[in-house]
Amino acid sequence: MTILENIRGPRDLKALAEAELGELSEEIREFLVHAVARTGGHLGPNLGVVELTVALHRVFESPVDRILWDTGHQSYVHKLLTGRQDFSKLRGKGGLSGYPSREESEHDVIENSHASTVLGWADGLAKAHQVQGEKGHVVAVIGDGALTGGMAWEALNNIAAAKDRPLIIVVNDNERSYSPTIGGLANHLATLRTTDGYEKVLAWGKDVLLRTPVVGHTVYESLHGAKKGFKDAFAPQGMFEDLGLKYVGPIDGHDIKAVESALRRAKRFHGPVLVHCLTEKGRGYEPALAHEEDHFHTVGVMDPLTCEPLAPSNGPSWTSVFGDEIVRIGEEREDVVAITAAMLHPVGLGKFAARFPDRVWDVGIAEQHAAVSAAGLATGGLHPVVAVYATFLNRAFDQLLMDVALHRCGVTFVLDRAGVTGADGPSHNGMWDLSVLQVVPGLRIAAPRDAEQLRAQLREAVAVDDAPTLVRFPKESVGPEVPAIDRVGGMDVLHRSSSEPDVLLVAVGVMAPVCLQAAELLEARGIDCTVVDPRWVKPVDPELPGLARRHRLVAVVEDNSRAAGVGAAVALALGDAEVDVPVRRFGIPEQFLAHAKRGEVLADIGLTPVEVAGRIGASLAVKEELSKEQQE
Amino acid sequence: MTILENIRGPRDLKALAEAELGELSEEIREFLVHAVARTGGHLGPNLGVVELTVALHRVFESPVDRILWDTGHQSYVHKLLTGRQDFSKLRGKGGLSGYPSREESEHDVIENSHASTVLGWADGLAKAHQVQGEKGHVVAVIGDGALTGGMAWEALNNIAAAKDRPLIIVVNDNERSYSPTIGGLANHLATLRTTDGYEKVLAWGKDVLLRTPVVGHTVYESLHGAKKGFKDAFAPQGMFEDLGLKYVGPIDGHDIKAVESALRRAKRFHGPVLVHCLTEKGRGYEPALAHEEDHFHTVGVMDPLTCEPLAPSNGPSWTSVFGDEIVRIGEEREDVVAITAAMLHPVGLGKFAARFPDRVWDVGIAEQHAAVSAAGLATGGLHPVVAVYATFLNRAFDQLLMDVALHRCGVTFVLDRAGVTGADGPSHNGMWDLSVLQVVPGLRIAAPRDAEQLRAQLREAVAVDDAPTLVRFPKESVGPEVPAIDRVGGMDVLHRSSSEPDVLLVAVGVMAPVCLQAAELLEARGIDCTVVDPRWVKPVDPELPGLARRHRLVAVVEDNSRAAGVGAAVALALGDAEVDVPVRRFGIPEQFLAHAKRGEVLADIGLTPVEVAGRIGASLAVKEELSKEQQE
Repeated sequence: MTILENIRGPRDLKALAEAELGELSEEIREFLVHAVARTGGHLGPNLGVVELTVALHRVFESPVDRILWDTGHQSYVHKLLTGRQDFSKLRGKGGLSGYPSREESEHDVIENSHASTVLGWADGLAKAHQVQGEKGHVVAVIGDGALTGGMAWEALNNIAAAKDRPLIIVVNDNERSYSPTIGGLANHLATLRTTDGYEKVLAWGKDVLLRTPVVGHTVYESLHGAKKGFKDAFAPQGMFEDLGLKYVGPIDGHDIKAVESALRRAKRFHGPVLVHCLTEKGRGYEPALAHEEDHFHTVGVMDPLTCEPLAPSNGPSWTSVFGDEIVRIGEEREDVVAITAAMLHPVGLGKFAARFPDRVWDVGIAEQHAAVSAAGLATGGLHPVVAVYATFLNRAFDQLLMDVALHRCGVTFVLDRAGVTGADGPSHNGMWDLSVLQVVPGLRIAAPRDAEQLRAQLREAVAVDDAPTLVRFPKESVGPEVPAIDRVGGMDVLHRSSSEPDVLLVAVGVMAPVCLQAAELLEARGIDCTVVDPRWVKPVDPELPGLARRHRLVAVVEDNSRAAGVGAAVALALGDAEVDVPVRRFGIPEQFLAHAKRGEVLADIGLTPVEVAGRIGASLAVKEELSKEQQE
Repeated sequence: MTILENIRGPRDLKALAEAELGELSEEIREFLVHAVARTGGHLGPNLGVVELTVALHRVFESPVDRILWDTGHQSYVHKLLTGRQDFSKLRGKGGLSGYPSREESEHDVIENSHASTVLGWADGLAKAHQVQGEKGHVVAVIGDGALTGGMAWEALNNIAAAKDRPLIIVVNDNERSYSPTIGGLANHLATLRTTDGYEKVLAWGKDVLLRTPVVGHTVYESLHGAKKGFKDAFAPQGMFEDLGLKYVGPIDGHDIKAVESALRRAKRFHGPVLVHCLTEKGRGYEPALAHEEDHFHTVGVMDPLTCEPLAPSNGPSWTSVFGDEIVRIGEEREDVVAITAAMLHPVGLGKFAARFPDRVWDVGIAEQHAAVSAAGLATGGLHPVVAVYATFLNRAFDQLLMDVALHRCGVTFVLDRAGVTGADGPSHNGMWDLSVLQVVPGLRIAAPRDAEQLRAQLREAVAVDDAPTLVRFPKESVGPEVPAIDRVGGMDVLHRSSSEPDVLLVAVGVMAPVCLQAAELLEARGIDCTVVDPRWVKPVDPELPGLARRHRLVAVVEDNSRAAGVGAAVALALGDAEVDVPVRRFGIPEQFLAHAKRGEVLADIGLTPVEVAGRIGASLAVKEELSKEQQE
């Protein structure tokens, strides 16, 4: 048995001799590379935190001490050390989550994988400990990239306010959380990094002093002043200390002994302290280190030796269709500029950035700033395209509403990963946008059904210069073209089986094939259907009520929450037009979706042709029965 | 004529002799006190920026240079100096907005009054200037309180990243934007404040050097290193310089000459620079200075000498009913704690804080942190009550969804100023919550109709410990009690006119009186009505579809956006139950609402008994006609 296999929980880790830790780290890396190659997942970040995680679990007593992970994709090592070593179905249905999960383990706290939240959680937990007189330590691990998010700042400001409330912040600084980070903070961290060596000199003496139990604190404190003077000579004083946080670092995050020593010192300090650890993303795995773009931040199923993908490609992705078209648009229009929130390549802006380096900005993990600076850019005469994952736009809702829409700014939001995304679990599904954004006055929303529509609607969107527009599309490969047979208003008619149809299926974007197949099933049962793709789902096409009036039932099918989405908007438009054809709404039920493949999730929630057709048929049957009863 | 009356625009200001500026400032203060006492509005903040605003308009060339105001309530002086001196209808229908307004003036840019946005706008505008080779300066004025908001941090990080992109940040530091600010930043600003005198020594020499045009920049730069050393001896180096911003200050913000000098230096600097101005909120008006709570941040209509309110009071406010009840709850339950985002008194937590000082936290203007730290507090075993204005919750939507709801945390959100608020204009209306929050799995929402219901529902809300709850109520005075005559499920029946009624009116919260009066009007026309208050509007009461089935029409009336709100949820529940009684939705149309009194706005958008009854009557008439046609 390997050392790793003998680790059933953090306690086993503490029993290891120091000499065994290096071997354990190697075993963990070996395990990670092979396990993640088999399932796909986050590789680079986890290879970077092997030693850091081992040290954390040796110094602290989870779960009494709370070890909190920001953007939980860096928690694989933590899983391995807390009794979860079956990675065979990682991120798959019934398998381990790709993020911490309270259901999996008492050692997990934050399941959310939106970045920059951990310091806020830690502040809340530390306050709860203080109010209730609990003793457990609170330790928050956050990447340098996530520190660029506004939430991190809000939390730092609060954490630093309480000098007597212990809280340990571990900055996992790999200089490139997603890709090379930018900004003032990155520069400052770089400055701090250059002070290597200084802390080592101090560490020994301080550790000795602190080990003296009763007087230790006082001795340390009295030395603090002297230390400050010493530090100024060697290193910049640092914004963290300006804010009131004790700063420890920089520490080599791959030197377990050094990390443990720093953490022990932090643990003894009765107040907020920041431990600055330098790590290397992809550490110990050559192909990851050689991958300039993101050090294998995530990988698909692949051969761990050659890194060749082992899953079949299903043709171009939605992302690449967008990425190519926005370059063409950029060629034609000098005023089109682009913004990404630390995800240049994942959202498809890599080619645009290569072609127009002065017309694209990576603002950090800062969706709020992406939106509000877009309002400024638009007011300054440009047309910004803000490309983000759909789920992350929730961070910028207020800015989209109050800065972009209220000021009628011509900004185009492009939402990748809209709808059910699957393997990344509840916090990555982009299932909120079509609901939440319904309230935004003047906003126009496009949901293209295929690559051709994406290209066309993207162009229609950037042509609007006095209001915000939004284009949303899902993860994965774009399907075959779905041709229109007619146009009604701005809507594409995809199918029409008779002149006296029963059911109008309103297919939102990629739900077009589902609706066409449902129509086929219904027609086999003698129920005639019309299928339309509204193309622009907000505002509702003015021709829709008139079209609906000629049917007995309207079914709206969307890859989005059933609550408050396009279905709700269609129902409102029909009511306003005094068209009382019953509306049935198909979409994602009001629940958080567990991780599984997109197809599996869609099947589970009934977004399949069979279920849609079945439900429509049942509704019509109820109506017929009711109408018979009334006639009798 | 006074000097002020002769100022028609910034140009007139530049023509003034330095000696006249003191007199002008006095005139402006005199004007502000009397004008704002007549209409109500933001007084303290504007008294604090008189000299700063004069200096800004003398040094810069608005609108070619862009002067941007954060949280625009500090823009009254700016209005006076840019051709707007008729304050007679300030914040009233047809009068001046209480915030900047592009419709009013080309000198205005940001209309939004949500805080901490200005640096993001400035970053966007500066980038647009750079891309297009435009010369105008971008100047952003932000308060020390607003710097605690995450957006400010995200923007600072981006602004500091571009060393060669000029942008001037003026920090208006009054040490108490809303009330005494807290946190690490506040401490750091306090440290910077103590360095008074140091900059004055340097200023003269640098000004001279910089005036030398061609070589100036280089000379200055070469001196920069020496300056740093010099500074370290006198003052802490400062986190702003750590981030990469040039720091100028602190400056006495009431010394026009000093401010002008600092701004001129900043203007010549080819990069991002922060000018730290110290001001006094309420400056020059004794009653404001004596008002410890907030230096007259806002005032109602009052006598400017005695400060006695001149508008009649209509009984206790919703805020005070909440504020009293939460203290009683706090007495009974030690685990109930409270969070405010820099608005302790405005949201009614003053008494709670006085009674339980260790159980309330002011997190700064940081709604994201309010929500995420609440998740931490709840996970730590407490029950946090997060009290914010309804419109500001939009800032924390992602955190409510992904941190609080996903983790099933027992957190109660209390939304004051929900619905139409009126005088503060488009960005203060709390008209989004009932729509945006429909998607949040597990969230329960209460909309109490009177004081008794508020007290009862608040208690029901804090009793839920495994899911988020939310209670929302409007601005102003709570009306008389609206008694229930029956209960169906969890719903209060407020009125029932017959056993075979035509219309079911679903009255959301304070819309109860409107619905009762509408029912009266309808019944006068022979249309029988039932009026229910669902109390908890999310989830929809399971008894509602059954009740609806016994009517010919359902009307949902809410003080919230018509899009995606309670009406949409009711329609969905009815459809799911195969109840196809037509639903009509009454609420706020999809538009931003201009400032006016709440009653005026409600009348304008048709949320009155006459309009609701009229619309319902018309719908029924159409239905009867259609049914006749079908019978023929």
